[in-house]
Amino acid sequence: MTTPTEAPATLHAQDFTKPDGRTLTLYGLEPVTVTGEIPSPSPDPVDARPLLRWHPLRGEWVMYAAHRMGRTFLPPPEYNPLAPTSDPAHPTELPQGRYDIAVFDNRFPSLTLNAPTPPQGPAGTRAGVGKCEVVVFSQNAQGRLSDLTDAQVDLLLGVWADRTTRLAATGQIHSVLAFENRGVEVGVTLHHPHGQIYAYDHVPPVQARMTAQMEAYHAQSGRPWLPDFVEGERESGERIVHDDGESLSVVPPFARYTFETWVLPTRPVSLLSELGAGERASLARTLKDALLRLDGLFGVRMPYLLTVHQAPLDGPHPAFPLHIEIYPYLRAPGRMKYLAGTEQGAGEFANDKFPEAAAAELRAVSPTAGENL
Amino acid sequence: MTTPTEAPATLHAQDFTKPDGRTLTLYGLEPVTVTGEIPSPSPDPVDARPLLRWHPLRGEWVMYAAHRMGRTFLPPPEYNPLAPTSDPAHPTELPQGRYDIAVFDNRFPSLTLNAPTPPQGPAGTRAGVGKCEVVVFSQNAQGRLSDLTDAQVDLLLGVWADRTTRLAATGQIHSVLAFENRGVEVGVTLHHPHGQIYAYDHVPPVQARMTAQMEAYHAQSGRPWLPDFVEGERESGERIVHDDGESLSVVPPFARYTFETWVLPTRPVSLLSELGAGERASLARTLKDALLRLDGLFGVRMPYLLTVHQAPLDGPHPAFPLHIEIYPYLRAPGRMKYLAGTEQGAGEFANDKFPEAAAAELRAVSPTAGENL
Repeated sequence: MTTPTEAPATLHAQDFTKPDGRTLTLYGLEPVTVTGEIPSPSPDPVDARPLLRWHPLRGEWVMYAAHRMGRTFLPPPEYNPLAPTSDPAHPTELPQGRYDIAVFDNRFPSLTLNAPTPPQGPAGTRAGVGKCEVVVFSQNAQGRLSDLTDAQVDLLLGVWADRTTRLAATGQIHSVLAFENRGVEVGVTLHHPHGQIYAYDHVPPVQARMTAQMEAYHAQSGRPWLPDFVEGERESGERIVHDDGESLSVVPPFARYTFETWVLPTRPVSLLSELGAGERASLARTLKDALLRLDGLFGVRMPYLLTVHQAPLDGPHPAFPLHIEIYPYLRAPGRMKYLAGTEQGAGEFANDKFPEAAAAELRAVSPTAGENL
Repeated sequence: MTTPTEAPATLHAQDFTKPDGRTLTLYGLEPVTVTGEIPSPSPDPVDARPLLRWHPLRGEWVMYAAHRMGRTFLPPPEYNPLAPTSDPAHPTELPQGRYDIAVFDNRFPSLTLNAPTPPQGPAGTRAGVGKCEVVVFSQNAQGRLSDLTDAQVDLLLGVWADRTTRLAATGQIHSVLAFENRGVEVGVTLHHPHGQIYAYDHVPPVQARMTAQMEAYHAQSGRPWLPDFVEGERESGERIVHDDGESLSVVPPFARYTFETWVLPTRPVSLLSELGAGERASLARTLKDALLRLDGLFGVRMPYLLTVHQAPLDGPHPAFPLHIEIYPYLRAPGRMKYLAGTEQGAGEFANDKFPEAAAAELRAVSPTAGENL
């Protein structure tokens, strides 16, 4: 194992409060400047009362948030709430100014830090404590995550790290999931490139399972799983898509989606904030490479879910490997993967292509084939 | 707790072998008769070599089955492989004859009983042992499960029970999942009413979790979960959609999908085969009622996933409650529920309507509103 490289440079960040009370942070590669007011689509304070209920058979929480429907505000068709406000009569979520990435509280959150105790309800009901944030990747409404420069993708990794650190500092958050859901095929109606952050006051099932599995591996073999995995994949070479030295992308031998791609640092760390400057820059380049290949694969913007997996915040979990999982929803041109009986009813995935074959196809795609799509 | 009622009458069943070696069973309310040959779309034996790989982070198996693509046979556009064969030049999966329900081995299985040991591969690779079956609900290509008569739905419950008993008798199967996936919205291209059965040589994650949770409940409270649940739901009444006495339908307080509906017997049993004749007939009526209401809700055939949850077959699991879960994919007219970051990346669902509200809407729908859609 190598030692971490120099820590990444401090990012430029500036905090604001929106007219409705929500928080906004603007991040930049250069110092942030703002022109004009900090807007909000509505001046009404968010009145979210999310709650959680316990699923006694699956042993997991379910989030409920019944928000006021029928907003009075009817936006023009070209209205984009994630673009900087250009017409003060139709305020968006973001101001004009010099910044690269913006993060603000979701106006329709499934979890909030100040969720009230529910008045009454069935057994296993409690307040939906947590936080839901929106992460706008760029001021360019038509762009993609992969249209960011290498430095901007590196900044995004820094923003995800910073949000995680800030959420941990509240003392109320035990697990943070950053993700991007992309594509009309999966119900995304807002095309401005953005992601979301869900911060939980408990450790959700997937993170709990991963932590337990990885800690068991570490206890049994005396070393963390990640270096063994990286070594095995480099030895075989069959499933690696791109190897940047300090990071690599791979279709894992246990891929659940046809072109599932994992992007990971080759040194085991459990949080984004533990990456050195060179490691984070490498991870950013590999992530961009992976996304461009997925778009180039069929010559269309691949619909996908991207999730950033970090260790729970309820204690040190050195066995947990920080990694990014990308689930591309197309298994062939125009053919979606749907989750049916075995996936949803049994929790077990069926995949009709071997990871080795999928990786070979992705290696054959030039990242430049994914540009300008 | 009541005692079981009289056992259901033995169903009429007849076994056949297809030209390609696969098995076929025809089931009927009346004795089965067949006219002509037992067909198969292709005479070539199925050469499936499915395998399983272990996902070390999620701690679950992933199924791989890379089937021969590019079949030589080009069917006419109206070709329906699940209809009885009418033109011997284009054989389907089923013969002409008098029968209600047919079950045969899937021609493209994700699991087979005689799966060979994989030649080599990454650690955690093994043969994909199990069985995948197709269950054709009716000879009527345009019908739905809810278009069956009460007696035919009762027969279907009997068929699912019979398949489970037969699969258990192989000694190789530890868990059986029967399901129906319906709707073009979720990729179903074959509209002839049918479901599938996945039989695993291990207990998959969802069934393992449910079993552990229910056994913990039983150990802690001294009684199984189901009667407590039924009692609580009957007391509140808020979430019950229909109560047939020996069975009921309910939007559970922990529903993950907006109009999620559970159909269950009110006496706790762990397998379909443990139901008495009256209980099974009641469950069939309640199931049909639930499906008609879901279609009537928005006046369209609701896309859904229906899964039948029975206890693992690796030993007695009296704490496991047999039940049917229906996940309707529409949360409002024309608006699908998609599984995004929190559902797939954390295993935790977000629902924007309270189960109490959803149940009230379903109660207000007359089952007749779901007929003839």
